[in-house]
Amino acid sequence: DLHNPYTPGSPITGFGVAKVLDSSHPDFKKGDLIWGITGWEQYSLLTATEPLFKINHTDVPLSYYTGILAYAGFYEICSPKKGEYVLVSAASGAVGQLVGQFAKLMGCYVVGSAGSKEKVDLLKNKLGFDDAFNYKEELDFNATLKRYFPEGIDIYFENVGGKMLDAVLLNMRVHGRIAVCGMISQYHVDQLEAVHYLTSIIYKRVHIEGFVVSDYFPLYCKFMDTLLPCIREGKIKYVEDIVEGLESGPAALIGLYSGQNVGKQVVVVDHD
Amino acid sequence: DLHNPYTPGSPITGFGVAKVLDSSHPDFKKGDLIWGITGWEQYSLLTATEPLFKINHTDVPLSYYTGILAYAGFYEICSPKKGEYVLVSAASGAVGQLVGQFAKLMGCYVVGSAGSKEKVDLLKNKLGFDDAFNYKEELDFNATLKRYFPEGIDIYFENVGGKMLDAVLLNMRVHGRIAVCGMISQYHVDQLEAVHYLTSIIYKRVHIEGFVVSDYFPLYCKFMDTLLPCIREGKIKYVEDIVEGLESGPAALIGLYSGQNVGKQVVVVDHD
Repeated sequence: DLHNPYTPGSPITGFGVAKVLDSSHPDFKKGDLIWGITGWEQYSLLTATEPLFKINHTDVPLSYYTGILAYAGFYEICSPKKGEYVLVSAASGAVGQLVGQFAKLMGCYVVGSAGSKEKVDLLKNKLGFDDAFNYKEELDFNATLKRYFPEGIDIYFENVGGKMLDAVLLNMRVHGRIAVCGMISQYHVDQLEAVHYLTSIIYKRVHIEGFVVSDYFPLYCKFMDTLLPCIREGKIKYVEDIVEGLESGPAALIGLYSGQNVGKQVVVVDHD
Repeated sequence: DLHNPYTPGSPITGFGVAKVLDSSHPDFKKGDLIWGITGWEQYSLLTATEPLFKINHTDVPLSYYTGILAYAGFYEICSPKKGEYVLVSAASGAVGQLVGQFAKLMGCYVVGSAGSKEKVDLLKNKLGFDDAFNYKEELDFNATLKRYFPEGIDIYFENVGGKMLDAVLLNMRVHGRIAVCGMISQYHVDQLEAVHYLTSIIYKRVHIEGFVVSDYFPLYCKFMDTLLPCIREGKIKYVEDIVEGLESGPAALIGLYSGQNVGKQVVVVDHD
């Protein structure tokens, strides 16, 4: 969590799902499932109930709540229109997989970038992206984007940053929008990668906006009303990458930053 | 003009003021002053009347129309609120001088950057900026901005790009806005300057948006209703840097890109 740095000796916190064993809060009773900021631990004492949300639907993958970032970023920041050209980076990840499918539901043309052949196949064959490419096999992202978007890009859902963002700036269309959800390529580098083509922001009148999930919690009900029926009817697929046991957590977290996960990375601490 | 590159042998075009000598268009009659895309020439045949605007007020500097960029960028893109911290680069230029004064009228705290002591004095003593600095005397823009904005920057009106933008990104406040009007430092360089701190867009949830004047022509009447009374009542000063004669045009244009002008650079081709 960027805003609450870790205190040594305390449990690591993060977005998670937990079962209520006991509660003195009127909104949460024993047996309820909740999601929100929980601990990486078998038993937690949660004293801050804001934001904790009760989970009322257990017939869908329990980590679907991650999708509120996809929902808010795509619909609220990108203002998508039918027929627009959309690029999603880290497209098979927790957020990217939903953005691409939302874009298809809107009637957009969607290309995803990901870091393995397996992920590219997933995007094209299971998640319904129009096309996808393995960025690790591309030498020149500018040429890559010109190949996949000969007409240019209307919407870029940004999860990676760095060189990809630079190439995207060169290939944006007039009045394009870039929703900046993450820049995972830039989080653990000694030196942040240089971006050069920001003058495109003027020439193409580009709108770039960063966002974090907590800004959009008020949309949560609307988001569930949209997503849950789509998952149930099979119109949207939702892929989780599940590892078992708290001891698997560190490797899963490290794997996330090198793109080992396929879909939403979930660590199951306990099944009870 | 970015969208209509120059054709050798034809007159150079640009935004200008002209007097109608003859017209077959119902909206423009002999003797009218108009502004819009005109030629760098004593006599022009204007066949495209969109966009040409009739000038109804000649008691204010005739180049005030430039201010629609300031007006649109500041009010529409920056959504300013009273008490916010505002930085304007190229602040004594055609657009910057108005942005700073609009910001003061809104009750913001405004600092301008400019390239000479003379301009800094103008900003502080004539144009009412809260503070101003000569960027040519600053070695480390990050330190400079921390000095002028210990609380951070809510709004940056961007006219220069490059290193200044990078330092601004480091010093934005949460939900800050950057209106990208220009990046004059980047127009005539062999290699575009690198920007590194784009991850701030996420951490601070920054909104960055580029714009061009033609997108905002519908605001023209509203803009004049705001600006003209302010100029007449002396609440807003408007500085023009006037050179005489078409032969002065090339030097004035080159001077613009090295910051020779103080206020709006105007070339008077003819007084008739």
